[in-house]
Amino acid sequence: MARVHPDIYFFGGGIAEGRANMRELLGGKGANLAEMASLKLPVPPGFTISTRVCTYYYQHSGKDPYPRGLREGVAKSLKRIEKIVGRRFGDPDNPLLVSVRSGARVSMPGMMDTVLNLGLNDSTVEGLARITNNPRFAYDSYRRFCQMYGSVVLQLKPTNPHEPDPFEEIIDRKKAARGVTQDVELTTEDLKELVNEFRQLIRERTGHDLPQDPHEQLWAAIGAVFRSWRNERAIVYRKIHGIPEDWGTAVTVQSMVFGNLGDDCATGVAFTRDPATGEKGIYGEYLVNAQGEDVVAGVRTPNQISLKAGRRWAERNGISEEERRARYRTLEEAFPDLYRELVRIGQTLEKHFRDMQDIEFTIERKKLYILQTRNGKRSAEAAIRIAVDMVGERLIDRRTALMRVEPDQLDQLLHPRLDPQAKKEVLARGLPASPGAATGEIVFSAEEALAAAKESRPVILVRVETSPEDIHGMQVAQGVLTARGGMTSHAAVVARGMGKCCVVGCGELVIDAAEGLLSVNGRTFHRGDYLTLDGSTGEVIAGKVPTIEPTMSPAFKKFMGWADQERRLKVRANADTPHDAKIARDFGAEGIGLCRTEHMFFGEGRIDALRETIISETPEQRAEALKKIKPFQRQDFIEILRAMNGLPVTVRLLDPPLHEFLPKTEGELRDLASKMGVSYERLKQVCDSLYEFNPMLGLRGSRLGITDPDIYKTQVEALFEAAIELRKSGVKSQVEIMLPLIGDRKELEILAAQIHDIAREVLNSNGAKINYTIGTMVEVPRACVLADEIAQVAEFFSFGTNDLTQMTYGISRDDAGKFLKAYLDRGIYPHDPFAHLDPKGVGGLMAMAIERGRKANKKLKLGICGEHGGDPASVKLCHRLGLDYVSCSPYRVPAARLAAAQAAIEERQKGAAFKDV
Amino acid sequence: MARVHPDIYFFGGGIAEGRANMRELLGGKGANLAEMASLKLPVPPGFTISTRVCTYYYQHSGKDPYPRGLREGVAKSLKRIEKIVGRRFGDPDNPLLVSVRSGARVSMPGMMDTVLNLGLNDSTVEGLARITNNPRFAYDSYRRFCQMYGSVVLQLKPTNPHEPDPFEEIIDRKKAARGVTQDVELTTEDLKELVNEFRQLIRERTGHDLPQDPHEQLWAAIGAVFRSWRNERAIVYRKIHGIPEDWGTAVTVQSMVFGNLGDDCATGVAFTRDPATGEKGIYGEYLVNAQGEDVVAGVRTPNQISLKAGRRWAERNGISEEERRARYRTLEEAFPDLYRELVRIGQTLEKHFRDMQDIEFTIERKKLYILQTRNGKRSAEAAIRIAVDMVGERLIDRRTALMRVEPDQLDQLLHPRLDPQAKKEVLARGLPASPGAATGEIVFSAEEALAAAKESRPVILVRVETSPEDIHGMQVAQGVLTARGGMTSHAAVVARGMGKCCVVGCGELVIDAAEGLLSVNGRTFHRGDYLTLDGSTGEVIAGKVPTIEPTMSPAFKKFMGWADQERRLKVRANADTPHDAKIARDFGAEGIGLCRTEHMFFGEGRIDALRETIISETPEQRAEALKKIKPFQRQDFIEILRAMNGLPVTVRLLDPPLHEFLPKTEGELRDLASKMGVSYERLKQVCDSLYEFNPMLGLRGSRLGITDPDIYKTQVEALFEAAIELRKSGVKSQVEIMLPLIGDRKELEILAAQIHDIAREVLNSNGAKINYTIGTMVEVPRACVLADEIAQVAEFFSFGTNDLTQMTYGISRDDAGKFLKAYLDRGIYPHDPFAHLDPKGVGGLMAMAIERGRKANKKLKLGICGEHGGDPASVKLCHRLGLDYVSCSPYRVPAARLAAAQAAIEERQKGAAFKDV
Repeated sequence: MARVHPDIYFFGGGIAEGRANMRELLGGKGANLAEMASLKLPVPPGFTISTRVCTYYYQHSGKDPYPRGLREGVAKSLKRIEKIVGRRFGDPDNPLLVSVRSGARVSMPGMMDTVLNLGLNDSTVEGLARITNNPRFAYDSYRRFCQMYGSVVLQLKPTNPHEPDPFEEIIDRKKAARGVTQDVELTTEDLKELVNEFRQLIRERTGHDLPQDPHEQLWAAIGAVFRSWRNERAIVYRKIHGIPEDWGTAVTVQSMVFGNLGDDCATGVAFTRDPATGEKGIYGEYLVNAQGEDVVAGVRTPNQISLKAGRRWAERNGISEEERRARYRTLEEAFPDLYRELVRIGQTLEKHFRDMQDIEFTIERKKLYILQTRNGKRSAEAAIRIAVDMVGERLIDRRTALMRVEPDQLDQLLHPRLDPQAKKEVLARGLPASPGAATGEIVFSAEEALAAAKESRPVILVRVETSPEDIHGMQVAQGVLTARGGMTSHAAVVARGMGKCCVVGCGELVIDAAEGLLSVNGRTFHRGDYLTLDGSTGEVIAGKVPTIEPTMSPAFKKFMGWADQERRLKVRANADTPHDAKIARDFGAEGIGLCRTEHMFFGEGRIDALRETIISETPEQRAEALKKIKPFQRQDFIEILRAMNGLPVTVRLLDPPLHEFLPKTEGELRDLASKMGVSYERLKQVCDSLYEFNPMLGLRGSRLGITDPDIYKTQVEALFEAAIELRKSGVKSQVEIMLPLIGDRKELEILAAQIHDIAREVLNSNGAKINYTIGTMVEVPRACVLADEIAQVAEFFSFGTNDLTQMTYGISRDDAGKFLKAYLDRGIYPHDPFAHLDPKGVGGLMAMAIERGRKANKKLKLGICGEHGGDPASVKLCHRLGLDYVSCSPYRVPAARLAAAQAAIEERQKGAAFKDV
Repeated sequence: MARVHPDIYFFGGGIAEGRANMRELLGGKGANLAEMASLKLPVPPGFTISTRVCTYYYQHSGKDPYPRGLREGVAKSLKRIEKIVGRRFGDPDNPLLVSVRSGARVSMPGMMDTVLNLGLNDSTVEGLARITNNPRFAYDSYRRFCQMYGSVVLQLKPTNPHEPDPFEEIIDRKKAARGVTQDVELTTEDLKELVNEFRQLIRERTGHDLPQDPHEQLWAAIGAVFRSWRNERAIVYRKIHGIPEDWGTAVTVQSMVFGNLGDDCATGVAFTRDPATGEKGIYGEYLVNAQGEDVVAGVRTPNQISLKAGRRWAERNGISEEERRARYRTLEEAFPDLYRELVRIGQTLEKHFRDMQDIEFTIERKKLYILQTRNGKRSAEAAIRIAVDMVGERLIDRRTALMRVEPDQLDQLLHPRLDPQAKKEVLARGLPASPGAATGEIVFSAEEALAAAKESRPVILVRVETSPEDIHGMQVAQGVLTARGGMTSHAAVVARGMGKCCVVGCGELVIDAAEGLLSVNGRTFHRGDYLTLDGSTGEVIAGKVPTIEPTMSPAFKKFMGWADQERRLKVRANADTPHDAKIARDFGAEGIGLCRTEHMFFGEGRIDALRETIISETPEQRAEALKKIKPFQRQDFIEILRAMNGLPVTVRLLDPPLHEFLPKTEGELRDLASKMGVSYERLKQVCDSLYEFNPMLGLRGSRLGITDPDIYKTQVEALFEAAIELRKSGVKSQVEIMLPLIGDRKELEILAAQIHDIAREVLNSNGAKINYTIGTMVEVPRACVLADEIAQVAEFFSFGTNDLTQMTYGISRDDAGKFLKAYLDRGIYPHDPFAHLDPKGVGGLMAMAIERGRKANKKLKLGICGEHGGDPASVKLCHRLGLDYVSCSPYRVPAARLAAAQAAIEERQKGAAFKDV
């Protein structure tokens, strides 16, 4: 059959003028309806007016807003629908009702407008009542239409959230007058009165009556949907999601079907596989004699679709098989033929779209209609199982399977999580800094946390913000909660590194540690009260909530194995302790990309010695103090190197400024002074002399190596001695010594020479040979610009993208909270640059460093060890930039492996696409 | 005559095998001696062994270290000398003595070794005594030779500074035994004994006697000079000054002449023009019967060379003409023929080298010898006068004249300076942050300074460091002295901007402001005691020192006019006040490149209103508070724009974080709270909420414009209202509104749109039209990388190289003091990057920004407004980078104009040089 108009795409009755791949013209909804119609699935017939008309509409405001012939085309298309369904638009005896819906290229849920039940007027409503034999249904539909038309088409709605909706106000008055509370309690007569009152309102407000001509209604609705593309909330939504203004919306006009005409009607939602577990087989819920929105609304409890799921559901809820059969019949039992048809349709759609489908259906008078299908959302567990199963079923290949799972989702599988069934009282929401779930008693200091740990009491460490001194407290806590700081604050970074649940920057917290009080949004908690954190959502929850432990399924292992075959990027972990190193290997890390050594200076026997070093007045005192630390550090290195057993381990020499190791308050200082046998004044003077206005840009990193070479010397000796010790027991080590904050070739040269000297000395005196390389963190912009010079000395570069982002933007991550939200809200930054690597600015500098560095030193090894190494988008950018490896928190290793695989696959697809051209 | 060896260059007796342009082979000294010989000037004959031999020497250690034929060549050259001077090397009757000196391509003063009086032994010393008829002279020369040979050739010298010199020890013992204190009091016998004791020491220490064979002495001395190229202090010196190791030194062997053989001998130093004033005519000092070092040593007072200068000197010192003629005879009077010869030689050399010469001469028995000539050092005043005069004399062209003056020198002419004749007790030395001299009473706070100013008492403001609150105190102080901070600390930057004498980072200061005490290196001063600062040297001086006021001579004006004709770069000034703007124009600024507006928020009636703004709780309170500030700012802008009378004025909107405007101590906070009628707790809470870990990277610059748009709105309104007001009285304005800290195109877009809106509103309501442009400071690295995007919105870029340097290096200028010295000492950084623009790192980013920016916006105007804009090396870099203008402190404008001219001339010369190739 010929097309009626170039901008109208008909579907239904065996015809489908559109296809799934025509989303640009038909919107997502219209394209999928056309596709289903082409598969001869029972879709109510209709047609889609293309997005081109939307563009035309806005270009011709003030004139006739529709292209030539469109009106005639719509009329002809309506005739086609009438022919298929056997009803006529505006026919008082057998009226056709239609829906008018928006549909953009990408889903913009709830942003634009819809009109249902269009075609009703004073005479067709009577016809509907007759043919459905259900006057209440007919008048309820008319009442809804009047309300929707008034609100959407005539814009009779509140202008601010405090104003009541004028139609709802009328309904409320009616219910009050009748002495009822529920809409369903209103009689047919009540509904008729409501229709009149609604029309009265419309007359008063607009000066015109509700149009009785269905065609007039239709064109008014079509215009309203086009106009809704530019309503305020749609504009804001597009700005936030970066959707171009000129895409426009399509309009789909479709005949209505009803699941609420009686007990031979139903409506439901079905998944082709279980979205929680991935188990194959239809899974979903339905309601008899109901409308689609009733399933979602939760007023009535829906029943299961399959018998298997129904029985499982009953068992879980302690319901006997008798009771279940009586009160909770499954679709399989209630409508066995339609159930089989639904299963068949599900299989057809799944085979067609090669993915698990989420299907909306309605049964009108024992006839099944499919209203929508789309790829179903699913849990991480289900995503992996479905992907692996579908490869087994030869529905998809392995690469497609790998592209189907969001790397970020994998986190769900590696951390305990809150039982989704459990009730919870959410007090506030902070930033989801480190995933997982944690429940414990509130403590306000690392000391309290350690004390509780000795008694095996689980705790949540609550701090305004954390500092390196809190690390041991964080280690023993179940979770960490801070009032300040962003996604890369100290608490966030350290907690992610530990794989510890953490919520940061929860501004609603008012912490009074002295009194042991935590206030949050009007509630007050005491030290010892229980609190629960959800590190995946940022929720702070009162009391205890049960959690679910993670498991790694065989499907997961198989899936990750496929990922490893695809990826080119190596994946390492940021691990500072033997414990972290072990977890990292379990999660598939191929080495340690960042072993921070500052933690090796904390802990008993160390911090005091380091403080002695800092306040020492002679080189001898200093050497004496450092001598005390070395054995501890040697042991730390032995255990880390042993855990990695020959895999590369990148050790970063001390990075933070020394003042971070000194106490802050006068009381602590006085304690320390008396402990160390120095005067308070002397200690205070040292602290004051170390004060910095901008510690981020101060005396830290390799600058310490230049000004205080003894500390680096101690670290390097400990490291080489550890490697020698291990060698004796046959364990190999591959050591990469990394100098932080290098910005100049000479700076690196001097420090590298010092390290080589120490190596020679230690190794010679032991007659040993250890493989080691020396490289630098690239984290100041100058190192990127001078990468060619630096690469002549460095054997590897590791991009420290946290600091590189800070310095490239000129933003301190600790202070960014004050304005970052405004920058994200106003769309100045598309993302938090500390969460996703900035491809243009920071990425531009990295690209420069990579090009210049590789040119100067062909053997240069390139990696990234900033927090971005665990962010899938950033991992993909690193792949495109041509790095050799990424390094991230142990718990992010699987996500990074998958993201790396996806990056490789995307690259291949792009390459193939270019070849086609 | 034929060359005796390819590596030996003879000079003297009418021969000169080398030339001045052969410094690479002959070293500076050898090349200039050859040049003078070629001019037939009376140079004692000699020869230079080229630097190639030095290279050969080091390549053949352990073997014969000299190229074939060198020994024979040296012997032949000695014969030539003998022939010319009529004495023979080693001849007991008429011995020739020679000096053996080092000489590198560039001067390395005192780093390498020299041996004088070589050729003396037990028999030639007697001959010398006979022919000079002066045994004491002969034995003193022998004694000196033994000592020098022992120390330099045989390395008998102390190994550390605490050890005494073994030869000096023997002399001291001898003087003690003779009961005398001066060397000259030792008799010929004493000197003979010293020779014997020295030789005894040499035998004991080396097992060998002092060689008696003059040829053996000579080769030992030549080897010692070559070896001294690699002595420790020479290596360190080269490292610091970036002199390549492989240049090597030349060795010059020259016959000795003596100015100390009797009253017909003399020695002196003559300048061809007065080095202090530039006045033409020979100027210098000499001593009868003396050695060269006596003139410098100051044991005897030297006499003037010319009669004119001698009379002037006597007059100044209150000496009568009779006494002068009797006791202080000039060379012109004592040796009239030789004086005329010296004048002639001076003229010859000046004409030849086309620059003022500094000549060392010796008169031996009424014969004049020239020992050295070099371009003379001179004061700024002299430099300009000489340059301008020489153009008048057609000795040099204007461009050469412009290249002759160091731009930095001009500072001396613009600021008062300490009387160089005055005595001074230097207490300590800080960093010379802002030139000039200042004397005043010590005060410790801005308040004290203001109080003293009301009584017209001059003060020196002494602070640990300064902050914006000190600015009014700084304005009224004569000078500023701080204990902390570097060349670009707040005090330094602000003081330079004010043209105020300032010394910063003087670590020796111990300040007790509460007690009103200042201790420095053991001396204690009280509030009100006098202190003097020399901002050009960093000296902190006790008490009052008289100062000299600056004058701008006609020569200066002519000279600067020539500079303006040459330069391509425009020069603007950083000026924040009408007073600064006026000075800037007087110094030749062509606009204001940076008008900081933060100062407009300090001062009475403003700071309180701004604080109200900061702590306001409602938009209305905020608007009310800002309304109070606007009239003040409008008036400020009116005066600045009027002072610049149509020249461009770049106004930077508020840049510092708001917490800088709040008081710091609890006492101040409590005062403010009661003054503002808010609770201390509320005020404290606001302050705490504004606290930042790294304020440099925090909520400041344009980020304030995004989060607190009202402040920028007030500023922009005040600015446009000011321009309109001026327009009414016929004064034009050219306003450039500059947004600081921009790092993203969208950020600039939003702020530019806000400014355009305000402009429209203000200008429309006044029916006025004002020329304005909107641009951005480029000071975060990201702005450089994304310059193409930003330039699509910005009409100009102004590089804020202070912050750009901080972020490119990852160094806070306020904290850099802790390690910058170590970085400079170890040669990691060739210069302080805050003093001289880093050409590779920061310059590399600037080059990228310029290329990308210009490509995207051909009309983009480019400038620099960081402190580097007043540094000549940085100005030249800016020229090469292709900027349109530089902007600097008003007092640096002349230096920048000259540097810009020199950059243009250098570019032309380079271009010409390339053309030649």
